[in-house]
Amino acid sequence: MIIIDRILDMQALMRRCRREGKTIGFVPTMGYLHEGHAALIDRAREENDVVVVSIFVNPLQFGPNEDFARYPRDFARDRRIAEQHGADVLFHPEAGEMYPGPLTVQAVVKARTDVLCGRSRPGHFDGVATVLIKLFNIVMPDRAYFGRKDAQQVAVVDGLIRDFNFPIELVPVPTVREADGLAKSSRNVYLSPQERREAPALYQALQAAAAAVEGGERSAAAIRRLVREQIEAHTNAEIDYVDVCSYPDLAPLAVLEGTVIIAIAVRFASARLIDNLILELPKAPRQEE
Amino acid sequence: MIIIDRILDMQALMRRCRREGKTIGFVPTMGYLHEGHAALIDRAREENDVVVVSIFVNPLQFGPNEDFARYPRDFARDRRIAEQHGADVLFHPEAGEMYPGPLTVQAVVKARTDVLCGRSRPGHFDGVATVLIKLFNIVMPDRAYFGRKDAQQVAVVDGLIRDFNFPIELVPVPTVREADGLAKSSRNVYLSPQERREAPALYQALQAAAAAVEGGERSAAAIRRLVREQIEAHTNAEIDYVDVCSYPDLAPLAVLEGTVIIAIAVRFASARLIDNLILELPKAPRQEE
Repeated sequence: MIIIDRILDMQALMRRCRREGKTIGFVPTMGYLHEGHAALIDRAREENDVVVVSIFVNPLQFGPNEDFARYPRDFARDRRIAEQHGADVLFHPEAGEMYPGPLTVQAVVKARTDVLCGRSRPGHFDGVATVLIKLFNIVMPDRAYFGRKDAQQVAVVDGLIRDFNFPIELVPVPTVREADGLAKSSRNVYLSPQERREAPALYQALQAAAAAVEGGERSAAAIRRLVREQIEAHTNAEIDYVDVCSYPDLAPLAVLEGTVIIAIAVRFASARLIDNLILELPKAPRQEE
Repeated sequence: MIIIDRILDMQALMRRCRREGKTIGFVPTMGYLHEGHAALIDRAREENDVVVVSIFVNPLQFGPNEDFARYPRDFARDRRIAEQHGADVLFHPEAGEMYPGPLTVQAVVKARTDVLCGRSRPGHFDGVATVLIKLFNIVMPDRAYFGRKDAQQVAVVDGLIRDFNFPIELVPVPTVREADGLAKSSRNVYLSPQERREAPALYQALQAAAAAVEGGERSAAAIRRLVREQIEAHTNAEIDYVDVCSYPDLAPLAVLEGTVIIAIAVRFASARLIDNLILELPKAPRQEE
């Protein structure tokens, strides 16, 4: 596995790969890799000639009171995991390489940001979109792999790729979970033992919601209430949001129909966790006038 | 010359060219081609295996009271000129192909827009940056050619390419002028015969400013005054701005030093014209404390 920390070196290598007709799969990460990332790398490995993993904790997507400084980092371990899963290239730039000075231009996400994490984290998706434009231009991939746990990110990236005509296929990969259902996340490391015991309640609440929908419940208000009650009953976390939206448009729904996302964010003492479930439901028939 | 109006066809062709190791030169235009555009195509022809010209009047870069609807169009003529100058591919998409629906993400230019045309045309450079991200991803060029007449655009595009790491070399090409000095522009067609006779006063005012600088004048206020007086003496146009800035940063200057742009915009009855002059001056020595 080659490790590259300079943008121009990366572009030169990728240009050579493209010249040789090789397909490039790209897994952008903020490091501290876990099985969720490994699943992305595995999938990229299956589908491409060359697999590039990037590790860059992007300051632009963190708010002033968020966890940029203490975001967990372990390059030696990340390197081992990436290599074990068959990555060919690890792109690991310094912040000064990615942002040598103030940006003169930035991406602004105009849709899908007034809900879910966009509401709680103003500017977050602008930072994500901006760094992804840069990374896409540096890596020039054929396919880019993103975890479904960050469902809103997947929707925003889908818009970014379409609207800006990046010649890239977006590949969303299912969420990987611990045995007890907790979605794998680099931020799980922040949890106290007690919080770790409570955290699977997010997944359980989503499962309870799925069961209610299975049983015929179609009211978004009822589903939100059910999920909130479950989380409040089994955790000491503060609920940031419990929302029911269309997917991938992320329009708030009153009645569940079509492709629907039930999304949760909660704040434990030192970790904000998110999870979600996407359901495929029949479209409700339109009422005749 | 191949004419393409679909994005996916364009990307497929360009991918094929890249596979074959061919270099791609790109001349983005809004059509109604004149000798200024021809100079861009000629230069691209000299420096690349494949030359792509795009013709797209980008609605996003026009303000609500600007001339989008009446911007001059003549595809048959454009096609002839592009072919005569050796273009290989003419990309000519409909607005609905470029903007099939509302954008979910947009580029916002954060620097260099509170001066010159950025101040008079709010949102203009956001629209330019957004369409260029799209066109760069569609054409995937090695080099992109822009006229120096739109000096602020060249500066903004330079920032766009650097900040977003587009693997593209920006090639600015000198302004082409009529025999009497008027900078070539698609919008010159709007001028009445009387305005056409007055319009060379812009270039003459810039030449007078250059002569004053040559003679030792270093005060930006004096240069601005000189240029204004010249334009007011020889035209009935309304002055939009006469500015003296550093280039390419576009910071307003009190004293001329380093690379300096003297830029003009004026409004005739039915045409807004711009022109500029870039001068290389020695840096003024810093005063000792």
